[in-house]
Amino acid sequence: MAVMGRQSIQFEKAPLIIEAATIVGKKEGEGPFAPLFDRVEEDAFFGKKTWEEAEGEMQRQTAEKVLEKAGLTRMDMRYVFAGDLLEQMTASTFGLMGYEIPLIGIYGACSTMGEGLMLASMITAAGYADYTLAVASSHFAAAEKEFRFPLNYGSQRPLSATWTVTGCGAVIVGAEGMKGGNGKRPSARITGVTTGKVMDFGQKDSMNMGACMAGAACDTIYQNFMDFGRKPEDYDRIITGDLGYVGKTLLLSLLNEKGFDISKQHDDCGILIFDQEKQDTHSGGSGCGCSGAMFAAHILRQVEKGAWKRVLFLPTGALLSKVSFNENRTVPGIAHGVVLEHC
Amino acid sequence: MAVMGRQSIQFEKAPLIIEAATIVGKKEGEGPFAPLFDRVEEDAFFGKKTWEEAEGEMQRQTAEKVLEKAGLTRMDMRYVFAGDLLEQMTASTFGLMGYEIPLIGIYGACSTMGEGLMLASMITAAGYADYTLAVASSHFAAAEKEFRFPLNYGSQRPLSATWTVTGCGAVIVGAEGMKGGNGKRPSARITGVTTGKVMDFGQKDSMNMGACMAGAACDTIYQNFMDFGRKPEDYDRIITGDLGYVGKTLLLSLLNEKGFDISKQHDDCGILIFDQEKQDTHSGGSGCGCSGAMFAAHILRQVEKGAWKRVLFLPTGALLSKVSFNENRTVPGIAHGVVLEHC
Repeated sequence: MAVMGRQSIQFEKAPLIIEAATIVGKKEGEGPFAPLFDRVEEDAFFGKKTWEEAEGEMQRQTAEKVLEKAGLTRMDMRYVFAGDLLEQMTASTFGLMGYEIPLIGIYGACSTMGEGLMLASMITAAGYADYTLAVASSHFAAAEKEFRFPLNYGSQRPLSATWTVTGCGAVIVGAEGMKGGNGKRPSARITGVTTGKVMDFGQKDSMNMGACMAGAACDTIYQNFMDFGRKPEDYDRIITGDLGYVGKTLLLSLLNEKGFDISKQHDDCGILIFDQEKQDTHSGGSGCGCSGAMFAAHILRQVEKGAWKRVLFLPTGALLSKVSFNENRTVPGIAHGVVLEHC
Repeated sequence: MAVMGRQSIQFEKAPLIIEAATIVGKKEGEGPFAPLFDRVEEDAFFGKKTWEEAEGEMQRQTAEKVLEKAGLTRMDMRYVFAGDLLEQMTASTFGLMGYEIPLIGIYGACSTMGEGLMLASMITAAGYADYTLAVASSHFAAAEKEFRFPLNYGSQRPLSATWTVTGCGAVIVGAEGMKGGNGKRPSARITGVTTGKVMDFGQKDSMNMGACMAGAACDTIYQNFMDFGRKPEDYDRIITGDLGYVGKTLLLSLLNEKGFDISKQHDDCGILIFDQEKQDTHSGGSGCGCSGAMFAAHILRQVEKGAWKRVLFLPTGALLSKVSFNENRTVPGIAHGVVLEHC
């Protein structure tokens, strides 16, 4: 393990991605990546009575799914790193409490899958665990209720707004040399991480979160280049979480100002997950579940099969609450970077 | 470093507590530990306009205070682990964003100081950092607004209710061999941690959070004894976060059922911080700031001067939100344990 520059770590014994699973909602299941999700749930309530319970149930089922796919049990997991967008981490608490795995609750807004993978890989690479589980979710209806207006109000949305993904990603990170109970040899590993800082550019529009997060994404990508001595071409893909169309344009422009052109490498989970023309999702998808689901269903698979040798995965979070918004505070952003490599 | 049992880690290179600082509100400054706090702020708004801004400002000032006391700067801190009780971590985001230190946002309700110290010590002991900063806060008025009713309603409180502490603890954890810029030799270190699980005993009364958390505290203490092969006498003190009078009674009884009598060792930050007779705080103090302030001002000092050789510090969290409460969910608990030793 080597400490790199101001914000990064390079792992000598790089932890492995043992397995990943994803469950999404109906709308996500109508998008271009539909066949790659482990399950598409048609019932927005996931058989429960409230949106919060629905999101918790989605986490529970996704965690169960990844254990099943890996041929492992919850008792094999030493820690679970989990988070969501709801106040006081409601979905993770109620979704995972039956698992009785030591829980490390995290909050990074929509960057949660990045924060979870980062901590899981740091803790695993340090020898504290053989297997850890990282889980992150979001639910469209729960998030609208939490941050904007209940759906029943029928509020209109500007074109800069993103659509919160109903989805959950669950990823098992294992120490070097470990494999799942299914015997499958892991073929993707996390070779490094770059931890993000809270960045505030004075943006206040919660209907334009791509703009709020673009500066944080730029900062973490730039720092990753500096810390590891890399340039855009050293990555097959640089994939942000949920900047959407508006945020992507800003990010490319901000990095250009710093002398880097990532237009050939850049993708954004929020742009990928929905079909903009057919699905009317305005600036794209967002939420912890957006990067969580796209990581598990798409990014990881491309790295596993070697189509991409090295990827910088960079979930982005907008750090607001309805209270901070109503009190006219800005919307700062944060982005945590995880370097994923084929092995 | 050794992995101990199901939930614990023992550090071979035990990380040091370099320095700690605490700022509290007026009521806390009238309690029995008043002289030990670094600063008592008479203005509940900390010079700001909203309760949320006030709590953020308290975090900012406490972080500044601990750096000043240690003779270090924010640039010496590789990571900050921070959290609070507000929705979407509002206080930490806005309080610490000016610091531009890589931020790892955590949520463990009132167990946050335990979660922060646990992660800070794991990350530091693993060699990822020379110095890390752990910060946790709560604010009485912000918490009442968040979880119960705005103060202006003048709601009555049952005797089982606790009083959310206005306070913040900030602790610098350093790697073995490090010291502060002030040259002071650290004399307390974290020799081990026990990570808690979410425990649900079907309690639903948010005005009796001690009862909701007692089961989680019992589970983590019991697991700590099992994992390290220890008994109550191996600790000079076992100090929970904010069980209060009601929760303490329950905890002692639950551990008795498991064959352990910790009545001689047990203290509770929530019971210590206020004078029950004079200050009318019912079951005691609570909040991230309760264990945060008592750790920094009292517990750490006793260990540093060798009055206590080994302490199990165990902040306790009640995992509820106003939404989960209104939807008639239970209030699960969690407790993270940190073993502090004189050196």
